[in-house]
Amino acid sequence: MGFGTVGRGTYRILTEKAPLIRARTGAALHVEKILFRNLQKAEAAGVLPLAVTKAEDILQDPAIDIVIEAIGGIDPASSYIEQALRAGKSVVTPNKAAVAAHLDTFTALAKENGSGFYYEACVGGGIPALTAVREALSANSFLSVSGIVNGTTNFILTKMETEGMSYAEALKLAQKNGFAEADPTADVEGIDAANKLAILLGLCFGVNVLPEDIPREGISKVTQEDIVHAKKCGKRIKLLAHASRRTMPPADDLLSAEEDSIRAAALTFGVGLQELPLDHPLAGVSDEFNAIYVTGDAAGELMFYGKGAGALPTGSAVCGDVIAAAKKIISRREAPSK
Amino acid sequence: MGFGTVGRGTYRILTEKAPLIRARTGAALHVEKILFRNLQKAEAAGVLPLAVTKAEDILQDPAIDIVIEAIGGIDPASSYIEQALRAGKSVVTPNKAAVAAHLDTFTALAKENGSGFYYEACVGGGIPALTAVREALSANSFLSVSGIVNGTTNFILTKMETEGMSYAEALKLAQKNGFAEADPTADVEGIDAANKLAILLGLCFGVNVLPEDIPREGISKVTQEDIVHAKKCGKRIKLLAHASRRTMPPADDLLSAEEDSIRAAALTFGVGLQELPLDHPLAGVSDEFNAIYVTGDAAGELMFYGKGAGALPTGSAVCGDVIAAAKKIISRREAPSK
Repeated sequence: MGFGTVGRGTYRILTEKAPLIRARTGAALHVEKILFRNLQKAEAAGVLPLAVTKAEDILQDPAIDIVIEAIGGIDPASSYIEQALRAGKSVVTPNKAAVAAHLDTFTALAKENGSGFYYEACVGGGIPALTAVREALSANSFLSVSGIVNGTTNFILTKMETEGMSYAEALKLAQKNGFAEADPTADVEGIDAANKLAILLGLCFGVNVLPEDIPREGISKVTQEDIVHAKKCGKRIKLLAHASRRTMPPADDLLSAEEDSIRAAALTFGVGLQELPLDHPLAGVSDEFNAIYVTGDAAGELMFYGKGAGALPTGSAVCGDVIAAAKKIISRREAPSK
Repeated sequence: MGFGTVGRGTYRILTEKAPLIRARTGAALHVEKILFRNLQKAEAAGVLPLAVTKAEDILQDPAIDIVIEAIGGIDPASSYIEQALRAGKSVVTPNKAAVAAHLDTFTALAKENGSGFYYEACVGGGIPALTAVREALSANSFLSVSGIVNGTTNFILTKMETEGMSYAEALKLAQKNGFAEADPTADVEGIDAANKLAILLGLCFGVNVLPEDIPREGISKVTQEDIVHAKKCGKRIKLLAHASRRTMPPADDLLSAEEDSIRAAALTFGVGLQELPLDHPLAGVSDEFNAIYVTGDAAGELMFYGKGAGALPTGSAVCGDVIAAAKKIISRREAPSK
């Protein structure tokens, strides 16, 4: 559903990589339908035979196992996601605004209906950090999570430091390079990062915090003087989404942080500027790159670094989720009867 | 099987975290038996009621679904892994020597017998890089993979640079801190890194290269002068395991690198010293930390950073695999009959 940047990247990977994916995973994926607002766009994109203009044509089609919601925005995307989950379909989405607003609802619906809900692409684009937290690290309780989760602001801060640009100049360059929107508010004021932090809070700590309740600060007031002053102190200014437990377990008994779901009051969290020492792993994340830094009570410090946006990186994450959903569906269908 | 550093860490996490794991994943895990060479050690560790001294007591027990092989070394560990897979049990192992020698055999056996084979902990300890490559990135073809996969040598190189130590002094400190064995050969001569590269070659490129056929160089000949010279040129010496395609697809058509399994001759690979520019993400990986850096044709550049060794980090990776195996088993058992 939706054929913007991410939808196109996903479609390209799913079609060009179908033989590879089938050989590796056993999943014979094919795109059955694509939702467009109007058919002219579908014709221009060369996918007219797949195009539909009514969401119901997808949501009520029993032949469709997996729905990719790539429309963006909270509504009507959230309603489509809910309908698909209720119909027992697995849903994959890169829609961070919808997921930040309704993660708990979507997760509960997926559980109730035996469907699957996947949202790796919502945070850090092509970086498979959420899947790692949810799957490979699932024996860990998390002590903290922080990240550079907005490529636009990281690009601007990098150019201010390396090229000596003013904020306005760096923003202009970001817009020219396609890293910033004409109206950059959601990025530069930390709104996008707050959406992503809401998702990380839900995933790592099981707390349900709405993006609008997250304290945030943006980068629009950062001056060249701030950058130079930080540099003189051996530091670098980064915009971080961060959350950590107020009370840390003693270092020699890390596993005592065992609760899964904790109260939001037990956490310190927000989106804001931080001066990081140059040898901090996040300090080396430059330009439009993103990184998620988590501390697990068993695994210790971990960082996941990569491209936070773009058709193919984000499409890679969407396709990874589609493959995970497909493998689960196949595994259930192939299971021996009880 | 086996109750050394990793076995103990795994046991501790599996028992202390059992309620958390059950709540998150639905898997009610419990340790049924532990293989010891002799019962005195089991008594000293306080787990005598679980101890057995014959591998068959585990391998032939129909009540056991998942076998964790943490004995280490190629034999008899490989034979135990094979027997468990043939018996339809899922196998989880952090044993990089056995996996480097027999990955293709273990993978084929798991497929034939409907069992599962998991080896996340073999490369990068607690860093969930292999799972990411195998699962979340499975729509990607890989263009290159490189990594700092040996914490001992990275610790020594870091101390030589930051403290101005000689190689011999830094090695001594590593031994004192428990990062290096009394006989450090396997680490400092790149043998351990070659084992890990063999596993990465199999996973990322589908090629079967034995560790002894991997060109390698160690760090024992690195001098303080080499370190200083690199620093003067704005670079840092790191021991990398690396592999990349000899022929890269054009940058504007990355997805054309679509084959899954390529010939070893199409790859350049080895373990060796490299001078990295300071702004390369791997240059910032210091002390005993590890990192895996991969380039996927869709996801682009990615790096996974964390602790490459230790009871709890490696145990975290083993437990992540155990949970994945358990979820798969549960999903099959709960499936509706056909």
